[in-house]
Amino acid sequence: MTPLSLSYANVMAPALGSGGIDPERLDGELAERFQRARARVDRQRESGELGFLDLPGDRGAVKAIREVADSFGQWFENLVVVGIGGSSLGARALTEALLGVHWNLRSDEERDHFPRLHFLENADPDSFTELLGRIDPRRTLFNVVSKSGSTAETMAQFLAVEGILEAALGEEKVGGHLLFTTDPSAGPLRKLAEARGVPSMAIPANVGGRFSVLSPVGLLPGAIVGIDPDEVLAGAAEMARRCEADQLRENPAGLVAVLLHSLDRDGGRSVHVMMPYADRLRNLSLWFQQLWAESLGKGQDLDGRPVETGPTPLAALGAVDQHSLLQLLMEGPRDKVVLFLRRKEAEGRVEIPQRYPDEEALAYLGDSELGELLEVERRATAEALRRSGRPSLVVEVDRLDARAMGELFMLFQLATVYGGALYGVDPLDQPGVELGKRLTYGLMGRTGFDAAELAPEDAGGFRV
Amino acid sequence: MTPLSLSYANVMAPALGSGGIDPERLDGELAERFQRARARVDRQRESGELGFLDLPGDRGAVKAIREVADSFGQWFENLVVVGIGGSSLGARALTEALLGVHWNLRSDEERDHFPRLHFLENADPDSFTELLGRIDPRRTLFNVVSKSGSTAETMAQFLAVEGILEAALGEEKVGGHLLFTTDPSAGPLRKLAEARGVPSMAIPANVGGRFSVLSPVGLLPGAIVGIDPDEVLAGAAEMARRCEADQLRENPAGLVAVLLHSLDRDGGRSVHVMMPYADRLRNLSLWFQQLWAESLGKGQDLDGRPVETGPTPLAALGAVDQHSLLQLLMEGPRDKVVLFLRRKEAEGRVEIPQRYPDEEALAYLGDSELGELLEVERRATAEALRRSGRPSLVVEVDRLDARAMGELFMLFQLATVYGGALYGVDPLDQPGVELGKRLTYGLMGRTGFDAAELAPEDAGGFRV
Repeated sequence: MTPLSLSYANVMAPALGSGGIDPERLDGELAERFQRARARVDRQRESGELGFLDLPGDRGAVKAIREVADSFGQWFENLVVVGIGGSSLGARALTEALLGVHWNLRSDEERDHFPRLHFLENADPDSFTELLGRIDPRRTLFNVVSKSGSTAETMAQFLAVEGILEAALGEEKVGGHLLFTTDPSAGPLRKLAEARGVPSMAIPANVGGRFSVLSPVGLLPGAIVGIDPDEVLAGAAEMARRCEADQLRENPAGLVAVLLHSLDRDGGRSVHVMMPYADRLRNLSLWFQQLWAESLGKGQDLDGRPVETGPTPLAALGAVDQHSLLQLLMEGPRDKVVLFLRRKEAEGRVEIPQRYPDEEALAYLGDSELGELLEVERRATAEALRRSGRPSLVVEVDRLDARAMGELFMLFQLATVYGGALYGVDPLDQPGVELGKRLTYGLMGRTGFDAAELAPEDAGGFRV
Repeated sequence: MTPLSLSYANVMAPALGSGGIDPERLDGELAERFQRARARVDRQRESGELGFLDLPGDRGAVKAIREVADSFGQWFENLVVVGIGGSSLGARALTEALLGVHWNLRSDEERDHFPRLHFLENADPDSFTELLGRIDPRRTLFNVVSKSGSTAETMAQFLAVEGILEAALGEEKVGGHLLFTTDPSAGPLRKLAEARGVPSMAIPANVGGRFSVLSPVGLLPGAIVGIDPDEVLAGAAEMARRCEADQLRENPAGLVAVLLHSLDRDGGRSVHVMMPYADRLRNLSLWFQQLWAESLGKGQDLDGRPVETGPTPLAALGAVDQHSLLQLLMEGPRDKVVLFLRRKEAEGRVEIPQRYPDEEALAYLGDSELGELLEVERRATAEALRRSGRPSLVVEVDRLDARAMGELFMLFQLATVYGGALYGVDPLDQPGVELGKRLTYGLMGRTGFDAAELAPEDAGGFRV
């Protein structure tokens, strides 16, 4: 199997022209920037901050995942992951890429008797009632995922689910339909797991939500629907190994980070458009969006000085967004870079028959294949962008299998920590979300939080 | 029913502080800008360019839609819309908002025997084979939607679908499973409809793809799954009427356009984040993203001078993206405005039981309701943004019904044409997508298009 590749001629001056990066600069100043970033990332790694790097080697976690999946996880008709943000995006990205977008419409036989898979993310009563009105709680396993064990949306839905289970099954059977994934020692979910004997998985203390896809957060739901955790981790380990390269040009994550950062800082290209050409990767874009935005969008630098920095990730999908965003990408402000993702070989093949040889607007499509058209569209779009002086990168994998997903997850996680070093911010914290949480607690009447005075959104009559 | 409201105190200086808009400026310079924009939009309307404004009054179209939906559209088990971009986003937004996100998982009885609804958008062979392998073509209606009648992705899939229908049903029965929505007189689909007697709907010549949701492009799929076109159009007509107001402060679309444009042009806030708090509005964000990006992202102004302008629309979803984008919105560059969408009343109600009164991190959630938590999160987020000097607007509707969707569609379509006038660009064209199309045709061997020399994406060895 060919490993993942990154091609970046279309951000370089020879192909792109004046907005491109000079090769000498790549090997000079940018290589030096990379060395400084690498030194910082190495220190973080040595100090144990980058827990996601240890996950591919965590045999105990894989064993625990397999035990749960094989012993009872796969017995159920439905798996419902109750989680939001970093507690759902990775599992969504992984399972959508490997199961496709119609998994839940498949019959039991077509799913090889693996469970249907649902996500309760948002605190949206419509989604909750629609889903819970449709599934039989007696045949459903709820995997409640929260590192802190206190995420408001998740815990609210857990409480409602627990009530429904109790009503349907009786109190003593509730625990058999729950599975918690949370901190190894702290938080309400951990406490409940121990008090009530609910089976549980641990998210290592040094693995934050948005870096947790290779922990049980992503791999357990995956294993329950038949995705081999070892394959995912083997791909991730292989990518981590490649990203130990000390030469920038040999380091895929280093290149992604250095090129995107330089195009932003030195060229004002602050919008990073993630554009896979495969419906199955729509959720990977959303996973990347969280990773990139929450890690790099920071108000303070590493010395506590105000910076208000960070690129804006924009999740797109090719070829669909050629009919939506492309006009802006081609002709709008030169503040964007496109990161194409391509799988060389799809699962399906769709022959396009030659049905109207005399109709010029249809004849050229005849006797081709749908995946060929999709790749032609991608290449044409990359070339059109290049000719307009708009940079793009392309990441390619042979096909969307568990190994390739492991490579992709590790590539972008490592690019993100390199990005943190390059932007000069802490990629592991998220202090900006605290104020909203405190205001929420206050409004909901949580003990110890005051109900703050909120400015009305139509104060001063600014309303129509 | 309360009409849609727009509250905008949180973009104004009294509430927001130094980055906000001064009320005197709103009533002075910005009101004048609005008058100039309004004059231009009035001229466009009078010259017949803005066909979408005539759709609410087009009784003939509604009659044709009802006839098709009632006479045979609803007989099928499956409706598959074959279309991309403006040919699918509006129908997706409308039907998702009103049917919910689990429509296709419902039983026939739960769907009141209306068809299941699928979209074939992308030229992705995986999605195509998954869907076509699952549905029975004999019980499926394919609505092929393309204004030009020659969109590559759509026509390629149409050819493949037609072949499948012919193999399953025999040649003479194919036409009964097809329904075309296309230009009233031109293009290959129109020609085929006439030559083969395929039933068809017309998209008025002066209605472009991204402004077509209120035409049969959006309303026909809606009607086939039970959405009353008259209700949607009544809401749209009501909003169009409100947006005839000549005073800026009384004109909802004028306010959306003037405020977002001013925050961009005068304040550098070029990223416009559309953030509904309802899972059912995820596709409305994507519909808005196309409308805003493709209409306002332009390389030339109205006099043909180079400008390279246009805001970047970012589709988000609350409260989910509080766990993804909010950190960047709160602390990153001050280049963003958030447009909240809120429905005051959800379809469902989910009581959160008080199960752990002694566990402080859970007790505050007990005895509340999930929709209450969602709105508290939205209010808290808006307030947190305000305190950090980050502007936001909020659009509110009572509930997600057909009428409210009509209001929303018309509001943003009108805001877009006002936006075109304010940015000084033509909101109705999309010249930037032509080069990519020509390159695609050339690579696919279409007569009259040369296979251009493409620069390799790894030219110069820029590949790892």
